[in-house]
Amino acid sequence: MVRRNEIRAGEVAVDPPAPEDAGLLYIGRIATPWASRLDCPRQGRLDGPACRIEIFEPWVAALAGIEAYERLEVLYWLDRSRRDLVLQSPRNDGTARGTFALRSPVRPNPIGTSIVRLAAVEGATLIVHGLDCLDGTPLIDLKPDRSLFQPLAPPQPGDFQVE
Amino acid sequence: MVRRNEIRAGEVAVDPPAPEDAGLLYIGRIATPWASRLDCPRQGRLDGPACRIEIFEPWVAALAGIEAYERLEVLYWLDRSRRDLVLQSPRNDGTARGTFALRSPVRPNPIGTSIVRLAAVEGATLIVHGLDCLDGTPLIDLKPDRSLFQPLAPPQPGDFQVE
Repeated sequence: MVRRNEIRAGEVAVDPPAPEDAGLLYIGRIATPWASRLDCPRQGRLDGPACRIEIFEPWVAALAGIEAYERLEVLYWLDRSRRDLVLQSPRNDGTARGTFALRSPVRPNPIGTSIVRLAAVEGATLIVHGLDCLDGTPLIDLKPDRSLFQPLAPPQPGDFQVE
Repeated sequence: MVRRNEIRAGEVAVDPPAPEDAGLLYIGRIATPWASRLDCPRQGRLDGPACRIEIFEPWVAALAGIEAYERLEVLYWLDRSRRDLVLQSPRNDGTARGTFALRSPVRPNPIGTSIVRLAAVEGATLIVHGLDCLDGTPLIDLKPDRSLFQPLAPPQPGDFQVE
């Protein structure tokens, strides 16, 4: 069962500072088949259902060239997640582990990241496969999958440094 | 050359809305060998120099169990990046492409993501290899590499849906 908003046996919540160190902009909206948290996948799959990512103005021009990448990294804001748990019990069985050792949506900054397969670009909308989020989730970033991307800019000294 | 703050030939800036759709918390700080943007790698490498990620309270307890993962996904806030470019010219040669088709630090929400190798956990500090950011960069999230993580929670209907 997904968390509704309860705190489970073994979990620990903290009283976090106000989240005002930096501000996010919603740059788009994600349409998925999942209207309830009880239906969402735990993890997206590249052969999963088509989802639509709609980009808002003034960011549509920033899509130029994106069709060259078969896979994209998508960052989205899990706006219905609580943010105050440091220990979580995914199985709800009395055992807990740290939030940073989980990919749970419950995190101090609830940012989801997925690798998706880009099926089509239709104007300001991308059709992708591989998401796991609720219908209506706000988009915060989009970039080529790191394993497909070669920097265009010339290398810098740090590119050659090894341990 | 990295961007200082100039707009180059072929680039397009927009007048973005105020970034107040959601608020971020800095949950830690990253120490790297790179004090200047002129030295940072374009992309981190898993055999790169050791970097230190210091976790702030009240989040230290959320590290419990992280040592089980050889690789982590790290999200950080590129606090010295401009946020208003939709077309960028990485080679500064008059040609430009969209921000979402680049992994440049200049983005509407300047969030960097890296996969790092976890070398050690020392109390509230992680020693990792694979980062590319400036010394002092604020940390915003930390999770197991998706390719190493198996959800502990029971599957949901969406996990079985295919296109």
